[in-house]
Amino acid sequence: MIPYKTIVKLDKNLPAPVYIQLCNQLISLIKQGTLQPASKIPGSRLMADTLNIHRKTVIAAYDELIAQGWLETAPAKGTFVNTALPIVKKQRIKVPKNQLKKTKAAFHFKERPHLYRPDISTTAAGIITIDDGVPDNRIAPIEEISRVYRNIIKKSYNRKLLAYGSIYGNRELRETLTDYLNESRGLNISAENILITRGSQMGIYLASKLLLTDGKNIIIGKSNYRSANKTFAEAGGKLNRVSVDKNGLVTEEIEALCQQMPIHAVYVTSHHHHPTTVTLSAQRRMHLLELSQRYHFAIIEDDYDYDFHYNNAPILPLASGDSEGNVIYIGALCKIVAPAIRIGYLVAPQDFVDEAARYRRVVDRQGDALLELVMARMIKSGDIQRHSKKALKIYKTRRDLFCTLLKEKLDKYFEFEVPEGGMAVWVKLRKNISWDLVREEAIKHDLSLADYCWDSDEQETSKLGMRMGFASSTEDEIQEMIVRLEKTMTNLW
Amino acid sequence: MIPYKTIVKLDKNLPAPVYIQLCNQLISLIKQGTLQPASKIPGSRLMADTLNIHRKTVIAAYDELIAQGWLETAPAKGTFVNTALPIVKKQRIKVPKNQLKKTKAAFHFKERPHLYRPDISTTAAGIITIDDGVPDNRIAPIEEISRVYRNIIKKSYNRKLLAYGSIYGNRELRETLTDYLNESRGLNISAENILITRGSQMGIYLASKLLLTDGKNIIIGKSNYRSANKTFAEAGGKLNRVSVDKNGLVTEEIEALCQQMPIHAVYVTSHHHHPTTVTLSAQRRMHLLELSQRYHFAIIEDDYDYDFHYNNAPILPLASGDSEGNVIYIGALCKIVAPAIRIGYLVAPQDFVDEAARYRRVVDRQGDALLELVMARMIKSGDIQRHSKKALKIYKTRRDLFCTLLKEKLDKYFEFEVPEGGMAVWVKLRKNISWDLVREEAIKHDLSLADYCWDSDEQETSKLGMRMGFASSTEDEIQEMIVRLEKTMTNLW
Repeated sequence: MIPYKTIVKLDKNLPAPVYIQLCNQLISLIKQGTLQPASKIPGSRLMADTLNIHRKTVIAAYDELIAQGWLETAPAKGTFVNTALPIVKKQRIKVPKNQLKKTKAAFHFKERPHLYRPDISTTAAGIITIDDGVPDNRIAPIEEISRVYRNIIKKSYNRKLLAYGSIYGNRELRETLTDYLNESRGLNISAENILITRGSQMGIYLASKLLLTDGKNIIIGKSNYRSANKTFAEAGGKLNRVSVDKNGLVTEEIEALCQQMPIHAVYVTSHHHHPTTVTLSAQRRMHLLELSQRYHFAIIEDDYDYDFHYNNAPILPLASGDSEGNVIYIGALCKIVAPAIRIGYLVAPQDFVDEAARYRRVVDRQGDALLELVMARMIKSGDIQRHSKKALKIYKTRRDLFCTLLKEKLDKYFEFEVPEGGMAVWVKLRKNISWDLVREEAIKHDLSLADYCWDSDEQETSKLGMRMGFASSTEDEIQEMIVRLEKTMTNLW
Repeated sequence: MIPYKTIVKLDKNLPAPVYIQLCNQLISLIKQGTLQPASKIPGSRLMADTLNIHRKTVIAAYDELIAQGWLETAPAKGTFVNTALPIVKKQRIKVPKNQLKKTKAAFHFKERPHLYRPDISTTAAGIITIDDGVPDNRIAPIEEISRVYRNIIKKSYNRKLLAYGSIYGNRELRETLTDYLNESRGLNISAENILITRGSQMGIYLASKLLLTDGKNIIIGKSNYRSANKTFAEAGGKLNRVSVDKNGLVTEEIEALCQQMPIHAVYVTSHHHHPTTVTLSAQRRMHLLELSQRYHFAIIEDDYDYDFHYNNAPILPLASGDSEGNVIYIGALCKIVAPAIRIGYLVAPQDFVDEAARYRRVVDRQGDALLELVMARMIKSGDIQRHSKKALKIYKTRRDLFCTLLKEKLDKYFEFEVPEGGMAVWVKLRKNISWDLVREEAIKHDLSLADYCWDSDEQETSKLGMRMGFASSTEDEIQEMIVRLEKTMTNLW
């Protein structure tokens, strides 16, 4: 008899019943070949004594294993490992170890070195991070979300939202967003033009999958939002770059490219170009729309920070002037509400929305209909808009402070323009040193800079800047940030 | 002067300020060519009188338009449309219409006819639906979810969950699931082997994207879970089918295929084959694992209803016997908690999990970290397990009633086996008529049958059944369902 007492570990405090634990461990012994087909298993009384458990528990386990086909009984002879099981080469007897780490797959899979490396963690106690422009989660309206959530689930008819639902997203949110976008951004759409997504990133992903497979050409800025670049490349698109100046994408270069090759899409962060924060001018907007109509390409307009504009009112998106159906307008509530509340939208002609919804069905089936309804109600009640106004005020103060201090203390090292909106300043170095060097020095002063790796074809364009986010830090934190940045730069210069 | 009074519609009750409404409408007029470059705009006093609004409002709008580059002022001459704007062919003057529906894209995009058609709605008042096996959202533990959510957000340090977070999912949920899966299913993993997904569907999608691009071969059952088939095909995989009998996938056929061609993956719903509900036998399990090691393929084990087994305890998944790193184990909390609460997991060797997480970064950035923590806490507290037990008891009663009535009232028309688990019965017709015909007749009796379109290569295999879900209906509803089904079949036979 094999040493069951040593090998089998039972624990009444585990959630699984003891008889199931016994089953599982006997199956393991069979699988690893310790118990071979046709080997005899101790009778239930003997096993119960050996393991110091109740005999009924052993019987329950044996019945289970017989039902599952692992064991069989021979009348008057006893219980045996099923002879129909394949014979396994006997392995060393192992005491089960819960924390065995499986690190390598035993099969081939496709690796994509162009995608992101897993999370790079640079936060630790005492370290201050300058991110690349994200909201402050400390002011997120999470209590309101929780309150509205509670009110919704109190109504039993809302339970239907818990079932499998629409691949387009919650109908009430689609309708609410239709009104909200038509009124606030001059769009001209109906609910059929809206697909609810998991934030802007899913909108970019879905658009790419529909537009860019098989090496289709897309035009982007030099430089451009890195996450979008990676998504376009992953979908199979061919990236073509045009210059970005203080008026945004240079549309004359777009026109020149259209004359050379078939262009399927142009990606534009019209409101504040990512990363440089400039706004696409009115002339360029009209030119781009006109080109899209002439050359039949799609404009992917990523309006990631429409709501954050500090001086004038925000400029209307290109989508508001889209009379022919050329614009795919992508936005999200993540920046207003909170990044982890991943609700966004893709606005486009209905046939495109339909196809995107069908594709989305295989990606993650559908969204979180309950959370979507929460957002609809918070837009209707004005909660979102009130929060947005409040955040705007706070961020404006932070921008002003950050820019004032940058100018006052760090003018020797950095050049920048005060951004009209958004959550970051585009900062360029006055000397030709690399940002990697700055980052290395900064960490010695407990300052972590956002990891902005440039694409290889962007690195060539010298004097690239770095986005320095101000929105997520309080005024005290900004003060300290500048002190550490000053130490860093003094040491480097 | 163009008829501003007719064209411009201002409404103080709209959320956008009146001056912004005026801006937006003037921009529209410029864009559509009604106002051409260099045309003069009425003075602020005249415009205010015309529109019956305050002059300050008009001035604010004009200042805004000048700042945005739409208008320019010439000293002592007045305000004009910016001459630098391109000239637009004049369009018919339109009164803005909010509900203009854009139906057709003016650009080309890829359509995928093999994907799902948009939602087919068959529910209406008075109609009873037989779904294909889904949980009853009326018993979902949504109050508990809301309570735990509230408790979590009360702690201010949990606000960090609202910021951009890990692409792997919430760490506490990964650790909790590690223990939960090791204990309940005999897995042998650490938290590094877990990626949190948006339900099983995203797990299948990510696995497909890593395994099946470029026409790689995958083996599936004949028949098989339709949503998985579509996902594999979309990823570019080549589908190869093997028979399914009462012991599940016929592994001898898998072995034969491995000898003929390179096989990269085998998809298996081992616990209850979808759609036929049979369990993969112990011999087949061991054979399949052994084949995966010999031929170096991945087993995608979709354990979609592990928790719902009525007679014996559930059989351990293949993943529990995966000593070499061949199994990608996919599961979700959606079936226990609620379909719309889309939290699932993909368990695999660490290098595969890393790559899947990186791919997921471009799909939707990350999950809902707050909801993920809620689930972790509900597993730790035993809430999920208690709910699961309660649901199991309810569903067992419903299964028993549904099967008893099927046998009693409809034996003449249907053959089926009582399923040992899951949420549906696999029902076959005793006569060679099509299920489409049954569906058409049923709707006349206010009975809607789940839309199960077979893939073309499955249709050939005659005598296919239909999954009839019992779990989502109360006993009264099941009674009524059977009455209507009886009427349907009587009329048809």
